[in-house]
Amino acid sequence: EVSFDPKEHQHLRYNPLRDTWVLVSAHRMKRPWAGQVEKPPEEHVPRHDPSNPLCPGNTRANGEVNPDYDSTFLFENDFPALQPDAPDPVELVPPGCCSKVMCFHPWSDVTLPLMKKQEVVKVIDKWAELVEELGTTYPWVQIFENKGAMMGCSNPHPHCQVWASNFLPNEPALSDRCQRAYYQKHGEPLLLQYARQEAEKKERVVVESSDWLAVVPYWATWPYQTLLLPRRHVLRINDLTTEERGGLADIMKRLLTKYDNLFEISFPYSMGWHGAPTGPSLKEDNSHWQLHAHYYPPLLRSATVKKFMVGYEMLAQDQRDLTPEQAAEKLRNLPEEHFKTRGH
Amino acid sequence: EVSFDPKEHQHLRYNPLRDTWVLVSAHRMKRPWAGQVEKPPEEHVPRHDPSNPLCPGNTRANGEVNPDYDSTFLFENDFPALQPDAPDPVELVPPGCCSKVMCFHPWSDVTLPLMKKQEVVKVIDKWAELVEELGTTYPWVQIFENKGAMMGCSNPHPHCQVWASNFLPNEPALSDRCQRAYYQKHGEPLLLQYARQEAEKKERVVVESSDWLAVVPYWATWPYQTLLLPRRHVLRINDLTTEERGGLADIMKRLLTKYDNLFEISFPYSMGWHGAPTGPSLKEDNSHWQLHAHYYPPLLRSATVKKFMVGYEMLAQDQRDLTPEQAAEKLRNLPEEHFKTRGH
Ligand SMILES: O=P(O)(O)O[C@H]1O[C@H](CO)[C@@H](O)[C@H](O)[C@H]1O
Ligand SMILES: O=P(O)(O)O[C@H]1O[C@H](CO)[C@@H](O)[C@H](O)[C@H]1O
Repeated sequence: EVSFDPKEHQHLRYNPLRDTWVLVSAHRMKRPWAGQVEKPPEEHVPRHDPSNPLCPGNTRANGEVNPDYDSTFLFENDFPALQPDAPDPVELVPPGCCSKVMCFHPWSDVTLPLMKKQEVVKVIDKWAELVEELGTTYPWVQIFENKGAMMGCSNPHPHCQVWASNFLPNEPALSDRCQRAYYQKHGEPLLLQYARQEAEKKERVVVESSDWLAVVPYWATWPYQTLLLPRRHVLRINDLTTEERGGLADIMKRLLTKYDNLFEISFPYSMGWHGAPTGPSLKEDNSHWQLHAHYYPPLLRSATVKKFMVGYEMLAQDQRDLTPEQAAEKLRNLPEEHFKTRGH
Repeated sequence: EVSFDPKEHQHLRYNPLRDTWVLVSAHRMKRPWAGQVEKPPEEHVPRHDPSNPLCPGNTRANGEVNPDYDSTFLFENDFPALQPDAPDPVELVPPGCCSKVMCFHPWSDVTLPLMKKQEVVKVIDKWAELVEELGTTYPWVQIFENKGAMMGCSNPHPHCQVWASNFLPNEPALSDRCQRAYYQKHGEPLLLQYARQEAEKKERVVVESSDWLAVVPYWATWPYQTLLLPRRHVLRINDLTTEERGGLADIMKRLLTKYDNLFEISFPYSMGWHGAPTGPSLKEDNSHWQLHAHYYPPLLRSATVKKFMVGYEMLAQDQRDLTPEQAAEKLRNLPEEHFKTRGH
């Protein structure tokens, strides 16, 4: 009789943050690929493009002129999904939402892993400031970055978005329920317990430091998905100490450098932060929450072949083609020096 | 004061089949698109390609030779995600799963809307047969079609897949819970009540017949998503009468012709059937279920610009850029004659 090998044999894994399952069928990596091939990301992005609405000094769609910024730069989204002045259709969505764009750096040809640590700290400080400010009224402030054309990003200039809403969206609502139930049962935050376990086991760890941990979670659906979280119990990004922000800048640079080194391209992904809800929830006990970031990169086999989450995934269940442990090992073994600056 | 207009103002819609919400921000269609552009689907597919493993008479990856089939053709998936002989890792996934590929037609240059009604009926009969057969043991039989390279399909030959599993996957499990709760509360299947309401209102209807209804559901997330269902209470595809199968072939041809006519291309999508669970569930009361198919097409603006379900959608909540009523109207007003055969 053959014994069970997760790299060879299908199995299900439980995602405790979403109360869902993922089908792992690692043997599928053997099948040949004759499907769609993506364009690799643009290699030579000009540092300043006079026609790019995100660059310093340029004019945006609404006629506003960007300042000659030299660090981060924040402005209201010119085409927001959440309008501040929309009339109220149902009681559920009070008007007064907010959608912002934040440039990370004045140059178009840098990305977070290539920025200096102190420049990344400025981005983190701005994220914390936004959650602090918008969080006074909005129950949910979603910081997210779509990176690369493959992830629907239409501008190579390094930037993220912040959408604040008067409702708690599906994903954080689900994660809130799951973390709350775990806490009620075990008296400890789910993700703190999980992080401790992963830090001991090591097999899914990608990078770690005294304050932070990045793993390919046991329940990852995207091939190189990672979960980044502090080791200390932290509810929201604005609760991070100065030291922890420095540590976060470091670990982000390390993680994203490994991502870029995997296929030697500027690695596409969508990422975002989840922390305890804000607004009215600020007055409630949110001890069940633990701050964390999700990175969802689409690539599977190479710089140009992504994982398609289609038929079976849309209609039945997420399915992955290599084990999280295989993905973690691959990322862990990659150099921490960026391929673009190697030998410099 | 401005009054609420769903085409102009953001709002949330509830999906009763999944107990989730979708953010509708139709004004977003106004933003210019500078992002990724897809390759339009191949226009000239040869009827028979000697190197295509799905064509009649050709040899597949495992050395097997396809018969000279002249209707549908079914075989075991050569690279299955579900292996029949995998050892048992946890009690949750007993071995004995099954993954099949089914060709719709011997020719590579036809698709369902271009096939003859009687040929489509044969596909439906085969689907019914598979659910009947595999359903005697497996709790879930997922029939799905990934169409077009944009949906991860690597072969232009018209075909679908059938994955049967010894577990009830996330999506049907969720839909089962929602339909059951509704039935317990209202004494009527959710989707029967919903179909009656849509058939009266008409604003979201795309095509209908005496037996069938296709709507852009109120809670659609993909731009041109549709829900296709019988008007009669039917639990599973193998419960359809001969007449209803004929009616289904008709309405599928009409719906898919409209899809193709929208941007005058062979329209990409993932689709699949959901019906009452099988296997052990055959002995239970499943009156809360109603058979239905979901169509999830990725395109948004044109033959080459799709909707990206990325950052906000992955981390917070699905978001759509045109109202379901706008999408339904567009599809409804398209001709029922296929653009490829027009004037013939
Ligand atoms: O089974 P195929 O066609 O090889 O693969 C396709 O459909 C599967 C089921 O939806 C997906 O998991 C794959 O990502 C996709 O490329
Ligand atoms: O906001 P952008 O960059 O215009 O748009 C991008 O991100 C949004 C939020 O994830 C998505 O809804 C869009 O489909 C995507 O193209």
